[in-house]
Amino acid sequence: MQGKVVGSIREAIVLSGLRSGMTVSFHHHLRNGDYVLNLVMEQIAALGIDHLTVHASSLFDIHAPLLDHIKSHVVTKIQTDYMSARLGRAISEGAMEEPVEFRTHGGRPSAIETGAAPIDVAFIAAPASDSMGNCSGKYGKSACGSLGYAFPDAMHAKKVVVITDNLVPYPLVGWSIPETYVDYVVAVDAIGDPAGIVSGTTQITRDPIGLMMASYAVRVIQHSGLLKDGFSFQTGAGGASLAAAKFLKDVMVREQIRGSFGLGGITGYLVDMLREGCFETLLDVQCFDLKAVESIRTDPRHMEISASHYASPTVRSSAVDHLDVVILGATEVDTDFNVNVHTDSGGSIMGGSGGHSDTAAGAKLAMIIAPLFRARLPIVTDRVTCISTPGRDIDVLVTQAGIAVNPRQPELQDRLKQAGLPVVPIEELKTAAEKVTGVPTRPAHGNRAVAKVISRTGELLDTIYNIPRR
Amino acid sequence: MQGKVVGSIREAIVLSGLRSGMTVSFHHHLRNGDYVLNLVMEQIAALGIDHLTVHASSLFDIHAPLLDHIKSHVVTKIQTDYMSARLGRAISEGAMEEPVEFRTHGGRPSAIETGAAPIDVAFIAAPASDSMGNCSGKYGKSACGSLGYAFPDAMHAKKVVVITDNLVPYPLVGWSIPETYVDYVVAVDAIGDPAGIVSGTTQITRDPIGLMMASYAVRVIQHSGLLKDGFSFQTGAGGASLAAAKFLKDVMVREQIRGSFGLGGITGYLVDMLREGCFETLLDVQCFDLKAVESIRTDPRHMEISASHYASPTVRSSAVDHLDVVILGATEVDTDFNVNVHTDSGGSIMGGSGGHSDTAAGAKLAMIIAPLFRARLPIVTDRVTCISTPGRDIDVLVTQAGIAVNPRQPELQDRLKQAGLPVVPIEELKTAAEKVTGVPTRPAHGNRAVAKVISRTGELLDTIYNIPRR
Repeated sequence: MQGKVVGSIREAIVLSGLRSGMTVSFHHHLRNGDYVLNLVMEQIAALGIDHLTVHASSLFDIHAPLLDHIKSHVVTKIQTDYMSARLGRAISEGAMEEPVEFRTHGGRPSAIETGAAPIDVAFIAAPASDSMGNCSGKYGKSACGSLGYAFPDAMHAKKVVVITDNLVPYPLVGWSIPETYVDYVVAVDAIGDPAGIVSGTTQITRDPIGLMMASYAVRVIQHSGLLKDGFSFQTGAGGASLAAAKFLKDVMVREQIRGSFGLGGITGYLVDMLREGCFETLLDVQCFDLKAVESIRTDPRHMEISASHYASPTVRSSAVDHLDVVILGATEVDTDFNVNVHTDSGGSIMGGSGGHSDTAAGAKLAMIIAPLFRARLPIVTDRVTCISTPGRDIDVLVTQAGIAVNPRQPELQDRLKQAGLPVVPIEELKTAAEKVTGVPTRPAHGNRAVAKVISRTGELLDTIYNIPRR
Repeated sequence: MQGKVVGSIREAIVLSGLRSGMTVSFHHHLRNGDYVLNLVMEQIAALGIDHLTVHASSLFDIHAPLLDHIKSHVVTKIQTDYMSARLGRAISEGAMEEPVEFRTHGGRPSAIETGAAPIDVAFIAAPASDSMGNCSGKYGKSACGSLGYAFPDAMHAKKVVVITDNLVPYPLVGWSIPETYVDYVVAVDAIGDPAGIVSGTTQITRDPIGLMMASYAVRVIQHSGLLKDGFSFQTGAGGASLAAAKFLKDVMVREQIRGSFGLGGITGYLVDMLREGCFETLLDVQCFDLKAVESIRTDPRHMEISASHYASPTVRSSAVDHLDVVILGATEVDTDFNVNVHTDSGGSIMGGSGGHSDTAAGAKLAMIIAPLFRARLPIVTDRVTCISTPGRDIDVLVTQAGIAVNPRQPELQDRLKQAGLPVVPIEELKTAAEKVTGVPTRPAHGNRAVAKVISRTGELLDTIYNIPRR
């Protein structure tokens, strides 16, 4: 049996047959600690390969060197589900000729599997791998836990290169992605900076406004009719969302409610809920902190889930379709409940849907929690700068000043009113915000499309235009 | 989210769109206790659907009702990796017009994945499933352990029906096959007879000839140069093979050899080897006994492996390629080391390759253990009745009367001779057998092909012809 271990990333690139004009893919479990994308792109550039599409599940500030590769036309197209502010600002100012294609964490695997967004060479950053490419995120100095987003890349790319800093004897016990999909394995000194991969402990908010929103959020869940045995739940890693998870745990423990599953990007707060009996299992597409990594490594009830199983709309079913409640964030919400998580109010890219619109579409109750205003800019507006998640999929907006229920959910509205919660029309929240901040001027933008927002099912949802250079 | 649970197997068949002339598939983890194939075929026949191909990983005596479906042209073609004697005899006597296509446990997933043997509707017998089809073999009254052979069916069939007698709340904790592949779920009273699914305890042989062969087998392994740290091993569930596993364990424990993995169909003897530190992990495509089922359910080092990961020759790599030693059986071996496991010496089908030729091709040392003769028929012949595994992939034949080494392995021959083992030319074993049994007459057979033996890589290896009716 010929081995798959090759001497360098450069050698793996050459062996993969990568040529100019092709598509390379990356996953983002190493988050802002990821070295792999930069290491690979540096070698690709050195080899003189250009006009590539970078097809990444998310891009972080650490990937800023991509801007140089864009300038030199090594990279001429980007497909991603999320882009943090540093790259986002440059893209918004017009750094690329071709618009970025934003998909969702469920739409991306769907597009890969159906062939709408094929991959030539996938690079898998693996915290542990054996010589044949059986690999996992659970073990090693760069452990990140789940490799959920990397599954579609591994399963459908024409060539697959595993890059690891923890090469172990065959077979890796407890692999996630099997060798059956892997062409080459490269050992490097470090695939990432542990400090950037996961946070030590994600902290809940201490901000009184955040705590108030979290408290409202839990009361909305309590009175939604959904909080009963079999309950399923997802929340993000923002401070107020984490506070909501903690408060929800207290309620579930007190009322002895035995839920079924916690889903999504998993934090230690969800792990606490599992351990205290609030859930039977966690379905984990990505670990956000060390406690989650430790849990997925040691607790068989804490299961890794592929991006398709998590949220793809074109597999036979996915977990988001079984979700009762999801708590989500927003940079803007408009009076039609459309949500923007792609840009700031100035129109500069600083995020992306991730699993936002997938979970909103799947969950019985999709709740946005957001403060009425941030940095003197109102959250609630007439019209969001960018539609990331359509208003038809959002059920409730929770702010510190009141709770707005989508008119499409009159029964929920009645329930919350009867429970004495401060339910108000969403227009009132807009007015309340504008009393503090004034009516914002619409941000100026140019006529050049810098990004297309593609819905989870593949339709064009919105277009993001260039903004003036700073 | 619309559920996938339908009221009956009949309804699932109708919903699947199954029509005459299509291909239905089954896996064999419930072995001779399987009710599912018969239940499904009965409903298909009642619906008036005919001219089907049955595409099964193995067929056992319990599947004898297939003969009625063959008579009535409900089934007009069979593809399988193994067929036990009752069906085999009828096929050999000419029950079907079209020849059976025999593949191997690695060739089957390869043919499914590459499209050479596509499946229209796969029926998955699942000892546990949730309402969306996340399913596993590990839990429930019909627990069979691994579902390894069912993975390619689930992943590549146009429609997938899960049939379970243990429907659990969503999500099943510890699924093997995810819901992403499943279209319909049917709950039935029983998917199998536990007594036929796995044996309570598989017994090692007490026959002195078997024990002698097992002892030789272990000495061959000891002196092969392969028995050292990192050693990997597969053996079958026959009495002498199990005895060899037990003796090998004693040697490894005594000599403190820490192997890497045990592979294949797993028995309690391999589980003992794992527990006593002979292996780091077991890679399990099928459990043979209750101890193996208990182990795969509770020990994270005992991992389920898909049929492709086990043995497919067309994935990027599979576990058989990493195998040091495999111990295999034979109904006949010829002086070119070709092995027959498809027919008895009379030419009647009573088996099939299973993983025989996959592991023989992959392993560094492929060893056949077989007695010199059975029921007064010699094992070693001039020419096997059917070539199941080509002689080029077989390294050693161990009998009670001596050990024959394939001339392609002169170094191994020297090692064994130097160790004082009774190494003899294979022709001598033939002569010794014939002294006892007499020279056998070649079985009479007709001119009608009743089965084609297709190699793991898809070439025609041999043809099995009809034999006289009894």
